[in-house]
Amino acid sequence: MNEIGVIGLGVMGRNIALNMVSRGFKVAGFNRSFEKTKELIEQGIQNFEGFEHLEEFVASLSKPKKIFLMVPAGNAVGLVIDELLPHLSEGDIIMDGGNSFFEDTNRRYERLEELGIKYFGVGVSGGEEGALKGPSIMPSGDKAHYPYIAQILESIAAKKDGEPCCKYIGPKGSGHYVKMVHNGIEYADMQLLAEIYLIFKYIKKYSNQKIADIFEQWDQREVSSYLVRISADVLREKDHQSEEDLIDIIEDIAGNKGTGRWTSMEALKQEYNASLLSAAYQARVMSNQRSLRKAMQEPFANLQFELDDELIYQAYALSKSIAFAQGFGLYQDASERYHWNLNLKEIASIFRSGCIIQARLLQEIMDAYDSGATQLLTHEKFAAQVKDYKHSLQEVAIHALKLSLPTPVLLNALLYLNQLSSPALGANLIQGQRDYFGAHTYQRKGTEGFEHHDWNLNAR
Amino acid sequence: MNEIGVIGLGVMGRNIALNMVSRGFKVAGFNRSFEKTKELIEQGIQNFEGFEHLEEFVASLSKPKKIFLMVPAGNAVGLVIDELLPHLSEGDIIMDGGNSFFEDTNRRYERLEELGIKYFGVGVSGGEEGALKGPSIMPSGDKAHYPYIAQILESIAAKKDGEPCCKYIGPKGSGHYVKMVHNGIEYADMQLLAEIYLIFKYIKKYSNQKIADIFEQWDQREVSSYLVRISADVLREKDHQSEEDLIDIIEDIAGNKGTGRWTSMEALKQEYNASLLSAAYQARVMSNQRSLRKAMQEPFANLQFELDDELIYQAYALSKSIAFAQGFGLYQDASERYHWNLNLKEIASIFRSGCIIQARLLQEIMDAYDSGATQLLTHEKFAAQVKDYKHSLQEVAIHALKLSLPTPVLLNALLYLNQLSSPALGANLIQGQRDYFGAHTYQRKGTEGFEHHDWNLNAR
Repeated sequence: MNEIGVIGLGVMGRNIALNMVSRGFKVAGFNRSFEKTKELIEQGIQNFEGFEHLEEFVASLSKPKKIFLMVPAGNAVGLVIDELLPHLSEGDIIMDGGNSFFEDTNRRYERLEELGIKYFGVGVSGGEEGALKGPSIMPSGDKAHYPYIAQILESIAAKKDGEPCCKYIGPKGSGHYVKMVHNGIEYADMQLLAEIYLIFKYIKKYSNQKIADIFEQWDQREVSSYLVRISADVLREKDHQSEEDLIDIIEDIAGNKGTGRWTSMEALKQEYNASLLSAAYQARVMSNQRSLRKAMQEPFANLQFELDDELIYQAYALSKSIAFAQGFGLYQDASERYHWNLNLKEIASIFRSGCIIQARLLQEIMDAYDSGATQLLTHEKFAAQVKDYKHSLQEVAIHALKLSLPTPVLLNALLYLNQLSSPALGANLIQGQRDYFGAHTYQRKGTEGFEHHDWNLNAR
Repeated sequence: MNEIGVIGLGVMGRNIALNMVSRGFKVAGFNRSFEKTKELIEQGIQNFEGFEHLEEFVASLSKPKKIFLMVPAGNAVGLVIDELLPHLSEGDIIMDGGNSFFEDTNRRYERLEELGIKYFGVGVSGGEEGALKGPSIMPSGDKAHYPYIAQILESIAAKKDGEPCCKYIGPKGSGHYVKMVHNGIEYADMQLLAEIYLIFKYIKKYSNQKIADIFEQWDQREVSSYLVRISADVLREKDHQSEEDLIDIIEDIAGNKGTGRWTSMEALKQEYNASLLSAAYQARVMSNQRSLRKAMQEPFANLQFELDDELIYQAYALSKSIAFAQGFGLYQDASERYHWNLNLKEIASIFRSGCIIQARLLQEIMDAYDSGATQLLTHEKFAAQVKDYKHSLQEVAIHALKLSLPTPVLLNALLYLNQLSSPALGANLIQGQRDYFGAHTYQRKGTEGFEHHDWNLNAR
């Protein structure tokens, strides 16, 4: 009998199946079109059995049957579940390894729970390569049934200090929520690196190779991370067709698959300000405004600046910390809001290897939660970073503004710090306006009560 | 028989009813608790008839019965509709004058359409005073039945150049959508004025009275608007209790009732960047972060600047235009997305009086659409404003950053312009990263096709 079945043998699903096989598990594979299954069968991989018919695929699994879905998020997931149900019985387990919206996962969990089928939302990050060699894995569902899948998931996960980058996250769709915000942080860090690239290219006039060298040096420091490393790789790469630097032949337009947008929408729903994550998503949207960009394009101002590389480093390091702090702030808020009881330290720990946002910074976050931090930014190390690096961030942001160079995440990082540190936000004027035209009342300073001012509007 | 019935006699509903009575309509009134109805009855208002029982209230209306709801958005609307239905028959009309979410209105419209009841979503802006004297009104629903309600709605609406500030908007919930984004623009302009107040107070060290004087002068210029006027009023007002300036005794915390948040969420759903509107909502959220603000508060840097008042004026004028442009951009996008066929010029026209965002600028917007503008920012007058005032906005934003003074909407206005005008956004690096770790492909410059680079990852 096979120990686990994988449905969906696209790049990600195939790599997850091969990863499982490589750890010694007996794996059944199924794909809607048999073509992809056949390709795998023809490779004659030991411990992999491909099926043309779903029924035979399910029949080949030992009890409780464990089925891992790696199909596109959305309707496809629901359709596969519907097809599977007639072949499953109480205690069988379906895992959804795609980027499903966490509320869909909540809903599917509840529906299947009534039928006695155990449903797990499984966040998986690491891209193609991670899926094959070891991703970061965020499983959520009925904790009492997690032991049935723990061995497989923890075996295929990346390892850090000997520990698997896979921990039970919480109930229902919480694993997909954690993955969603992971991607929101990913958007922010990618955008930050794009802004730093612009600054080096247009303020410092550095070559792609020089910028790659700098990113490699940075990777030896506190900002060390996968995204910094691969940015260096991308900047060094040659286009196979033209022999130019690859970066120079790629159109200045970024796509997205929705998780960054979802993160921004959830932040709004939670009334939590995740401005760096939203700004990063909006930057991708702006890159797609072709006609408006074309109509409004202007050359950069021709200005010469002195701007030390170290200031740029500090601006990046601080902004990166704030992006992570906003992401973990969302986790904390969601945990309270949805009663998920998330373990923030464990979430940081499983991001340390395998996933796209793996970074040295995550160890600092673990340490902060270990010593009782409730807000990262006010905790020791981060507070010190704010104090030490804020001036650099300010310098870099101002230089970029002078050149009209758009650095949305750097700018929003600085703005966020200013909003938190400012003795005044002007909200008193807003509250005065609201009371004036809508009788919405305001709070009198130093009291908890709300009052309405008699504006005597009729006399005006 | 009464010509119209008003349900919900809170401040807004009572004022709407009194407005109708003052235009000569015979109005029936009903409120869940009889207390409020009784108060009105006791005033002995001619042409107003209050009812204790819903059935009698409905029975008093001439056919087709026209009922105007002014109850809190949310479940209350659905409950009132359920109670009304047994007493209505084909062709009767329910209008929802509250701030209902437009998708709720879509849903209610469809449900009632099946029962032969005509449902109108009616956006109403103008606050208490507007409701009484003449608000701006945005009705949506079945156009064929609009004539039955046109006379009443247009009579009670504000007037501009003799024209009522009430026009049929479009199908289903489009009127509530238009009202929602109106409020998004309102948040942005209120926040802008709060930021200008901070700049005058902390950079220029002006007194509240002096700032009020300046706002009154500005009200004679292109930025002339209700919100500028009332900001002057608010800044001049004395606290009745302490004799201090009222503005100085109001806590620096702003509330919100959701429409600004909804606008930000819809912008995300539409994948449209309404960054100024979102930043204004997030500024209110930040003002409520009491514990974090307390922990991170720092005095402003002690710096002396030269900053001409005229630069501040221009920064405000340009940012205000961009906020309106983003709002009208949302209308245009929603109109295409939902096939509403919105008339943007008419929307601008009904905002010119009665509503909170009434402003001279709306005439410019009308003129722009009249001469065929599709994007406001690239149209003549606005393009000229961008060209003439952008440097001032840059100067003001940079000064605020130097002082660590948070000016989120001004800053996001400048950022938005920079994103649109920049020859480079760094999206090529993001697309390179995405292709590297997720095989998401990228577009080759100057071609329409997408390609995947062979990164030879295994060799790394």
